[in-house]
Amino acid sequence: MSQDELRSLLSDRSAAGTPESRIVRVMSERGTLSAAKIATITGMARSTVSTALVGLRRSGIIVEMQNGDAGKSVGRPAVTLALNSEAGTCVGIHVGLEDIRVIVADVSHSVISEKKENLERDYTPARAAEVAKRMIDTSYAENSLRSSALLGVGISISGPVSPGGDVQRASMVPTWAGINIRQVFEPVLQRPIFAGNESNCAAIAEMMWGAAVGCEDFVLFKIDKGVGGAIVHRGQVMTGVAGGAGEFGHMTIDPDGDLCRCGNRGCLEIYASFVRPLAVADRLHGRKMSMDDVILLAKQGDVGSRRLIEDTAQIAGRGLGMIGAILNPPLIVIGGRMALAGSIILEPLIESYERHTLIKLRDQPEAMRTRITIGHFTENDSLMGAVGLVLRHHGRLG
Amino acid sequence: MSQDELRSLLSDRSAAGTPESRIVRVMSERGTLSAAKIATITGMARSTVSTALVGLRRSGIIVEMQNGDAGKSVGRPAVTLALNSEAGTCVGIHVGLEDIRVIVADVSHSVISEKKENLERDYTPARAAEVAKRMIDTSYAENSLRSSALLGVGISISGPVSPGGDVQRASMVPTWAGINIRQVFEPVLQRPIFAGNESNCAAIAEMMWGAAVGCEDFVLFKIDKGVGGAIVHRGQVMTGVAGGAGEFGHMTIDPDGDLCRCGNRGCLEIYASFVRPLAVADRLHGRKMSMDDVILLAKQGDVGSRRLIEDTAQIAGRGLGMIGAILNPPLIVIGGRMALAGSIILEPLIESYERHTLIKLRDQPEAMRTRITIGHFTENDSLMGAVGLVLRHHGRLG
Repeated sequence: MSQDELRSLLSDRSAAGTPESRIVRVMSERGTLSAAKIATITGMARSTVSTALVGLRRSGIIVEMQNGDAGKSVGRPAVTLALNSEAGTCVGIHVGLEDIRVIVADVSHSVISEKKENLERDYTPARAAEVAKRMIDTSYAENSLRSSALLGVGISISGPVSPGGDVQRASMVPTWAGINIRQVFEPVLQRPIFAGNESNCAAIAEMMWGAAVGCEDFVLFKIDKGVGGAIVHRGQVMTGVAGGAGEFGHMTIDPDGDLCRCGNRGCLEIYASFVRPLAVADRLHGRKMSMDDVILLAKQGDVGSRRLIEDTAQIAGRGLGMIGAILNPPLIVIGGRMALAGSIILEPLIESYERHTLIKLRDQPEAMRTRITIGHFTENDSLMGAVGLVLRHHGRLG
Repeated sequence: MSQDELRSLLSDRSAAGTPESRIVRVMSERGTLSAAKIATITGMARSTVSTALVGLRRSGIIVEMQNGDAGKSVGRPAVTLALNSEAGTCVGIHVGLEDIRVIVADVSHSVISEKKENLERDYTPARAAEVAKRMIDTSYAENSLRSSALLGVGISISGPVSPGGDVQRASMVPTWAGINIRQVFEPVLQRPIFAGNESNCAAIAEMMWGAAVGCEDFVLFKIDKGVGGAIVHRGQVMTGVAGGAGEFGHMTIDPDGDLCRCGNRGCLEIYASFVRPLAVADRLHGRKMSMDDVILLAKQGDVGSRRLIEDTAQIAGRGLGMIGAILNPPLIVIGGRMALAGSIILEPLIESYERHTLIKLRDQPEAMRTRITIGHFTENDSLMGAVGLVLRHHGRLG
């Protein structure tokens, strides 16, 4: 099977897809699986799976794994299958406020290369595409990868993205509002382009390989220099009719509050992001502080840094309590850089959630309790999710 | 086919169900359909549908409709099919604060009987079951219906209901918290019991036969003496892990505000339900006013009544704006008794939504705009939805 064939398998958009494309997708999501397990997950007949696997193995897309504990089972041991990591590569791009980050991963989502390039503020989309192209070319050259093996490019944007790929207002990069991602990147990169909001990407990463593996329903809540999130229902990220679902940072918690960059007043983000606490930290320490600085100090026992994080958790928990009243999800994954504070942020956040939400954790038996946990991807969540976009085919444009 | 067979078709819980049960369900949801349309909707093969229809028609569950405009099409006209309204009946019950309402409908959801009985406040679950039983028996006797034709009973509760059928706290009937609906009603009624939150029931009614027909994703927002709602995603009501999804009335909009019946402070319901405006109306008019009284006066041009409704719409719109930032739904259906005010409530509500939500209607092309509309079922929404529960098999207990 050629790269073109694999690319077409991954980009098969029909509701169910061919047996081959369904197998490739489920393998890229789940990692190693037996043929029986593939049949269970996809709901396809064993015979259909077997037939498709013959072709996929012959073409080298799927390989047999060495099964170390085969001796344990009676009878013929189940053969474990995996995607051939040499079968193709994916690129994930994050379009940030003052930088562009690019990751290259194989179809088994092992990271081959990660790069970051700082840019002037308000860089243009055309410049982003050109810089991304150069970064991708360099990554492929440095790692002796064939660029023909590039299956698709996932792009993560700090702001709502419509199902058609238009960046909406309230983006972290305001000059991009109204820009169509596909129209900008496709002519330059000449590969299938998949775009998504950064929090939706983060949710995909947590769902495919992180804190939400095996969970079909959860909420991702990001606390960073902005506040954002994503809602996953039955394994699908809810995008909303215009791409605006999961914009937790823009819930109006004080209609007469300060003006937000989105044009509304008193948005949760103003109070629950770490921008204001950072300004306080700068003043206290007489130098420019980063979130990592404050988190480190808090972990070392600095009471002021601890309190800044706790106060943020307190108000974030109030917002999260409202999300609980609306969604009552089984799982809430805390993402964003502030999640690196671990229990210092998690404990007051859970306490505040419990205080403000309707269905109290203490009233529920274990199975009906909302679990709140720290995400696994707090540093490169959007990039890994952008790779996941390519593999899962979420947010396909056009 | 016997009643028992039809009952078992309706209560088939397997993921997809038999072809017969899938056809019965889709017919009860959609009304009249051709065989080709059934195949399209269910995704089953034409031949599978044809085979199943032979049995369903022979047994009298499904009947052929007279097709008035058959002459219009060239070739053999498509036969239109419908459920035989004599094939069975469903009961919908609403458990209210001071009353119980019971509706009897046939499988084509035509209402045969509707009854209401006032009860003392804080009536017990056992008394509710006993009263419901008597009301059902009377309805069947008065309409010469065979009680053996009763397929199932749907029960709508004013409060969150867990997926297992337990009434949660914050119910309008606080003494019922912790009660399991099925355990109360099944021994007395001796029929399959399906239970759901009243707003979730209302959403089912709007989806099956009302303002959300053909819409797989929408939000129902109820304004009445309480504030509640439901979220429908891909045709399924989101229940939440403990039955607490869609509890819009209990979003904390003022953490230092008045105490709510749920035990939290400053819930949206305190400000956006019509309880406080009614108290003002009582005082202004020197008599006990109902929501209908105020709505009627507003429609007749009474500026005070109009203002009470507008102020309610204003704050409800703020809450709805937050729901918009979280879900960005394609459609919001306004339900509850206050929806009877029509444009008097809808216009200020939309204005306030637009002011407070992130994705502004004015910024979006038609196809990506959130549509906000008045529901079709504002009077018996929960009852019709409870009937819908039986037909759709949502919220099945146990």
